[in-house]
Amino acid sequence: MAILTGSALAQTFTNTLLPQPSSLAAQSGQLPFTTTFTIATPHFHDARLDAAIQRTLISLEHQTALPISKIVATGNSATLIVDVQGAGQPIQSLDEDETYSLTVTPTSATLHAPTVVGALRGLQTVQQLLQTDPTHSFFPAVQIEDAPRFRWRGLHLDVSRHFFPVPVIKRTLDGMASVKLNVFHWHLSDDQGFRVESKRFPRLTSLGSNGLFYTQDQVREVVAYARDRGIRVVPEFDMPGHTRSWFVGYPDLASGLAGSGPYTIRREFGIEDAAIDPTRESTYQFLDVLIGEMTSLFPDPYFHVGGDESNGKQWKSNARIVDFMSAHTLKDTDALQVYFNQRLLPIVQKYHKHMVGWDEVFHPGLPKDVIIQSWRGAKALTESATQGYQGILSQPYYLDGMKSAKDNYLADPLPTTSTLTPEQRTFVLGGEVCMWAEHIDERSVDSRIWPRAAAVAERFWSPQSITDVDDMYRRLAVQSIRLEAVGLTHISHEATALRQLAGTENIDPLLIFASALEPVSFSDRYRQQHTTQLTPLDNLIDAVRPDPPSRYETERMIHQILKAPTASPEARTHLQQSFQRWINAAPSIEAALSTSPALSTALPRAHQLTELSKIGLQALTYLSSTTPAPTNWKQQSLATIEAAKAPSALVRFTFLAPLQELVNAVPIP
Amino acid sequence: MAILTGSALAQTFTNTLLPQPSSLAAQSGQLPFTTTFTIATPHFHDARLDAAIQRTLISLEHQTALPISKIVATGNSATLIVDVQGAGQPIQSLDEDETYSLTVTPTSATLHAPTVVGALRGLQTVQQLLQTDPTHSFFPAVQIEDAPRFRWRGLHLDVSRHFFPVPVIKRTLDGMASVKLNVFHWHLSDDQGFRVESKRFPRLTSLGSNGLFYTQDQVREVVAYARDRGIRVVPEFDMPGHTRSWFVGYPDLASGLAGSGPYTIRREFGIEDAAIDPTRESTYQFLDVLIGEMTSLFPDPYFHVGGDESNGKQWKSNARIVDFMSAHTLKDTDALQVYFNQRLLPIVQKYHKHMVGWDEVFHPGLPKDVIIQSWRGAKALTESATQGYQGILSQPYYLDGMKSAKDNYLADPLPTTSTLTPEQRTFVLGGEVCMWAEHIDERSVDSRIWPRAAAVAERFWSPQSITDVDDMYRRLAVQSIRLEAVGLTHISHEATALRQLAGTENIDPLLIFASALEPVSFSDRYRQQHTTQLTPLDNLIDAVRPDPPSRYETERMIHQILKAPTASPEARTHLQQSFQRWINAAPSIEAALSTSPALSTALPRAHQLTELSKIGLQALTYLSSTTPAPTNWKQQSLATIEAAKAPSALVRFTFLAPLQELVNAVPIP
Repeated sequence: MAILTGSALAQTFTNTLLPQPSSLAAQSGQLPFTTTFTIATPHFHDARLDAAIQRTLISLEHQTALPISKIVATGNSATLIVDVQGAGQPIQSLDEDETYSLTVTPTSATLHAPTVVGALRGLQTVQQLLQTDPTHSFFPAVQIEDAPRFRWRGLHLDVSRHFFPVPVIKRTLDGMASVKLNVFHWHLSDDQGFRVESKRFPRLTSLGSNGLFYTQDQVREVVAYARDRGIRVVPEFDMPGHTRSWFVGYPDLASGLAGSGPYTIRREFGIEDAAIDPTRESTYQFLDVLIGEMTSLFPDPYFHVGGDESNGKQWKSNARIVDFMSAHTLKDTDALQVYFNQRLLPIVQKYHKHMVGWDEVFHPGLPKDVIIQSWRGAKALTESATQGYQGILSQPYYLDGMKSAKDNYLADPLPTTSTLTPEQRTFVLGGEVCMWAEHIDERSVDSRIWPRAAAVAERFWSPQSITDVDDMYRRLAVQSIRLEAVGLTHISHEATALRQLAGTENIDPLLIFASALEPVSFSDRYRQQHTTQLTPLDNLIDAVRPDPPSRYETERMIHQILKAPTASPEARTHLQQSFQRWINAAPSIEAALSTSPALSTALPRAHQLTELSKIGLQALTYLSSTTPAPTNWKQQSLATIEAAKAPSALVRFTFLAPLQELVNAVPIP
Repeated sequence: MAILTGSALAQTFTNTLLPQPSSLAAQSGQLPFTTTFTIATPHFHDARLDAAIQRTLISLEHQTALPISKIVATGNSATLIVDVQGAGQPIQSLDEDETYSLTVTPTSATLHAPTVVGALRGLQTVQQLLQTDPTHSFFPAVQIEDAPRFRWRGLHLDVSRHFFPVPVIKRTLDGMASVKLNVFHWHLSDDQGFRVESKRFPRLTSLGSNGLFYTQDQVREVVAYARDRGIRVVPEFDMPGHTRSWFVGYPDLASGLAGSGPYTIRREFGIEDAAIDPTRESTYQFLDVLIGEMTSLFPDPYFHVGGDESNGKQWKSNARIVDFMSAHTLKDTDALQVYFNQRLLPIVQKYHKHMVGWDEVFHPGLPKDVIIQSWRGAKALTESATQGYQGILSQPYYLDGMKSAKDNYLADPLPTTSTLTPEQRTFVLGGEVCMWAEHIDERSVDSRIWPRAAAVAERFWSPQSITDVDDMYRRLAVQSIRLEAVGLTHISHEATALRQLAGTENIDPLLIFASALEPVSFSDRYRQQHTTQLTPLDNLIDAVRPDPPSRYETERMIHQILKAPTASPEARTHLQQSFQRWINAAPSIEAALSTSPALSTALPRAHQLTELSKIGLQALTYLSSTTPAPTNWKQQSLATIEAAKAPSALVRFTFLAPLQELVNAVPIP
């Protein structure tokens, strides 16, 4: 066993943990990982801990290709002691203790946790800590004390606009567990589909789901799978708007005039006029039965009722409802929605649940145990926290906005600049990264969520001071491979989709092309393509990845060069090679794009890539030589870059902003 | 609508169908595929046909990115008329009619089939027929009449030595449907695990499966999924050998002396001594209950009882059994197995099933309705057919032998040289491609089955005369992309596994390295690595593909050059580039291999690749120049090639045989 000290230490410990723990002290030496590795649970253990240890053992085996014993002793003799005090809460709540500490010395390792959930978090750290060098695998000696910054660290997945089968949900949960997220917010109904079997109201799915829904057994299976990983499942049934799919089977729930049906499943996206009729007693009888049935499937203490984007149009156009409003002195449709929520809340409470709603459920006088989920951003969250409401931040973390991991990472639920008092700050429970499903299907969903969600997971878990973007991207690249190991397809999807588009395995040119591109945002695609639920998601945009690794790499190198033009020969060479590679590949890229109508729409982008790459090479040359750029070069180059910003083929270049900076840095002759 | 005739015809129809239909006549013109495409079922339709049509519509949409209606009319007005006479057999049997005809004209298409299963086959052909050129998508005008050559076209999957979850099974069935295979032979129990829930004998899985088994609901789900695709599911419960996993929960079934237990699940591979005790009545009582329960899950008329590799050792070592043999004048343990089968057969028949067994169940006097599955090869099959027994050929199609698609493809269940009479020939029902699971897990299974199984599927379906290997590989490359579209990971797995091995997304050098390699055969790996069920499958061998596309490509080019050294400048250039690429990548390959112990075992292979590539380049030079090769060059080169055949790192080079031919063709000075 090698005990390394002093200068050797730096070489043995490469911190690739994600999220970063609250406190980590690297020590001297390393604990070798060999075929004799064992785990023991000397104190408490239960089925959940046992299963997590088995998954850990299998992960370590996969990482090293070394066979290890799967037998877990209850004694005190093992390479890794997992010392847990107790099971934790029977139903995991916001208050579950997730802390753990991990000590690795050159001779042994110990994971201490007060609860099994804390141990689950620590076991993920154990898996991430394993390192391999040319000759062996080992755990670096460290002392880690860890606890989450926020108690609510969620991932929201819309399964209504597109449906995702159970295996997709399971691997999403595995990805979440890997980065210590703890709430799966399951957006189960919307205008475009009702996705859970109801035995009481079977037409919700028989007519409102196109046959794409989870059986109650499958829901229980997912909830158990999540609990096994220390993840709460918060179901959302969005109402009173976003409910058109309900009305296909149950038209009397809607607010339309008599005979205004029949309703169909909405295929378009955007805000729908049809909404639940809040004026009938039968509505609340229906909701009582439905919520009673649904809460029986979801043990979590929270129940999400949506509440967003109800535009009141159907209410205003029904004289009976207008009469009701005036009879109840409800001055507008917002007031009618408050009335609806006031009727809804006791139903939710009757089933022993706390209500969660999007921003719009917030109104004066709302009971304080309702949680506000802010999709309108930090300002709305601050407002409700100021008034004493607990809240969750979502809006900066909308993955369909196709922002970079960096942008998502730097948004803080509680920025240091926040005006909230220390007490008000405790009302900010955390945040949720949100995946809306207008433009994703089961093939592309992973590549839209991961690895960007992992960067947000660190924001929710790690100390606020952890904000080094370079370091985040370095660790994210490693974490991305770990996420692939749990079965996620976020990396492999790109090549798979390109092969489908090209009809051949020979896609090297298309991969080079794709490395310069990323999808446009949800709203840009929606505007340009007029998408609906029925739009095939088989275009180049569906193949390319948001924030591909090459994007930040290019940005970083350009910034390095701009900071010290002569001091970065490596960055310079690397950039030149990138640009040259794009230029060299142009003929084969264009040939590949010319094979089918779906690909050939991107031909203008291929031509632009060549032009932009040439500009990049020229800028590098002018920046490092005494030869001045020709008159008009800068103006023309900036015009070319500007033109490349215009919409085309639903994809955008990843490097226009830094390229523009590079061109601007060239001295004007 | 463009009607193309004459010389344009050749350009419009590229035959990529796999398997090839019995008869195909290309016609003039093409039927454009646009957003107005529709399907109608004017005569019969049922839920199975409807679902298959929906899958077809979605496939066509994915292939073109053109949104099309999913509404299927029952009238006579649609782009494609699916004209089916009836449902076919309620329980699909050997005699199900699978024929169909497909007519495409420039204005419409019609698929005729007597049964829904025939229509399913035809709908696969429709999906394969769609072509795309730079500006549009279309069906070429054709007249196809199609029917299978063999009635039993199976894929056998061992789920005992490693377990494959339901999603793996489902995508395997989708792949099978795509190439018109019609029997899924599910090898559900063996020494290493019993994989189906038994409510009557729950310890079969609670103690004999490590928790890895299919619930009865899952079995029913798989059977329904298969039936939906026109695939029969034949379950196998291998006995009296290959049953050690049964004995963990039910030791009294075994033939050991009293107290010779307890039994454990076997982890080693190879032949096991423990076997069912055929001398006790309680054995047959147990089997009656078990077979009764299992046959209730599988509607197929056939029930596979295994019967292979029972070595009789445990029987011979138990005096009570030896006494039984002499009391019943059973001269040896083979005779005792005959006795066992004679007792087993009426039990199987009691549940209205035909028995199927491996070669060893064949013995004089065996009832004629038992089907013999030959794993010992064509000779055994011929023998039993000569005696009037129906048989299925498996042995040339053992995928774990890691033979090429070509070798699998050219093996014929009924070669033209067969000595069987016309009547005896009818006893050869077909064949099964076999996937044994010692060395595969759910990550690698697809890449071991596909696309090679598709080549065998053509052998089973298409006319015997279809044997053009070049053409098969050309179509197989396209079919491989289609198989990826149904969710199979046979292509993506390689890069995913290399990323896991390397711990990084930057695996370009490893991909170049992998393109020269393939896994060694089952037996070579077994010998070299001493694998067991517990061996982690995380080595380079588990990443690389059997028969990668580059293998045949290299062989083909070398043969082209050898045939006409000066007439193949393109092949020459391509080959030079391949060799040069391997040489150029050598430093980065070696750097990548040096990062971990699991990869660095392949360093010698990397050095060899450089040497072999240099030899290839030199051979090409000597073959095309007047400069003679130096003395000893050939001898040394052949020695280097020979050395590269020696086992190393569990992988082998794909191109040694043709390289040897190339070197041998260089004139001796």
